[in-house]
Amino acid sequence: MAEFTFYTVAMSRGQISRWALHEAGADYEHVVFDWATRPEILKSFNPMNKVPTLVHHHGAHDHVVTEAAAINHYLAETHPQAGLLPDAHERAAYFRWLFFAAGPLEQAVVAKAMGWEVPEGRTGMAGFGSLELALDAIEEWLKNNDYAAGNRFTMADTYVGSQFVWGLRFGSIPERPAFKAYVERITQRPAYAAANAIDAAIIKGAEG
Amino acid sequence: MAEFTFYTVAMSRGQISRWALHEAGADYEHVVFDWATRPEILKSFNPMNKVPTLVHHHGAHDHVVTEAAAINHYLAETHPQAGLLPDAHERAAYFRWLFFAAGPLEQAVVAKAMGWEVPEGRTGMAGFGSLELALDAIEEWLKNNDYAAGNRFTMADTYVGSQFVWGLRFGSIPERPAFKAYVERITQRPAYAAANAIDAAIIKGAEG
Repeated sequence: MAEFTFYTVAMSRGQISRWALHEAGADYEHVVFDWATRPEILKSFNPMNKVPTLVHHHGAHDHVVTEAAAINHYLAETHPQAGLLPDAHERAAYFRWLFFAAGPLEQAVVAKAMGWEVPEGRTGMAGFGSLELALDAIEEWLKNNDYAAGNRFTMADTYVGSQFVWGLRFGSIPERPAFKAYVERITQRPAYAAANAIDAAIIKGAEG
Repeated sequence: MAEFTFYTVAMSRGQISRWALHEAGADYEHVVFDWATRPEILKSFNPMNKVPTLVHHHGAHDHVVTEAAAINHYLAETHPQAGLLPDAHERAAYFRWLFFAAGPLEQAVVAKAMGWEVPEGRTGMAGFGSLELALDAIEEWLKNNDYAAGNRFTMADTYVGSQFVWGLRFGSIPERPAFKAYVERITQRPAYAAANAIDAAIIKGAEG
């Protein structure tokens, strides 16, 4: 049995975590399905019934991880030899941008796509402010740093970077030069290509 | 100079990270202001102009951490002697619920408070589903586990727990027995009381 079981849908945010599985060099098997035929077992692991969901067969225990950002960071922690964890000087930016992308940025992108606007005077409640403000914040960082944690690729880039890969592809994030350069930089990774080829083949098979 | 400088507003999410500073036993000084008089320097650290913002004076470098969940986890990592990091068997749940609380749960609470509803057929885009679904997911965990990472308090509880402390107080999260018991459990902590006393005194001073 593989060390990890990865529950996913080929055309979904699951692609973000498959990339991380390949960056980490994880020993995993996947259970791939489509939205209409989600297996009952998924709900027992994740009551949200969402993908990606990762199960780590850890000795006598099965540990469940949900939320793409958590899965990706968990894979970095369980595969330290892959060198994707931040060092002491990269740690602040690593966690800052990982939680920023999973929190305010995600929230701002979804709100914009849904046409939701934060009423005047309630910005304290909705901490993400606006998509413009959130994008300005991370753009400033990416103008001065090639990667989320600084000057080298870490696991944070599989998640933060995926927000930009998907956002630029679907037009939910405007194509600013710093974002475009960042996407070009991170999508050169062999693990990105390997992971994407698997999901692309599944999608093609399902269509054919 | 203290090792950390903590930028906050007394009546804000900054309370979540002050609790973490006290749990970690961090050597910090605070810069407290109110919303109307945010110092210019805050924007230079955090273009979102948000609190809490933490600056770590780390040797010759100043590292900036934003996002309450990131700040709290960063404090656990920089103070391993406080014993608030998860062990190998707690790690999956620790990161799962930390990112769950910072992502889908926060998003669902804000959407509900704003009266935003996800249209039928667009739940794939808005991964948080609904507040009910998000609450059901974590309620199931808290019925079977006293804390976010399992059977002992870790740094994840300062953030995940704060969502419930504030949610129950303001009525943005319904008072289910598992949530109430969790809040009662974690608010017994001496560090919680110590941190809250500081913000309460500042709020009282400002009102007086």
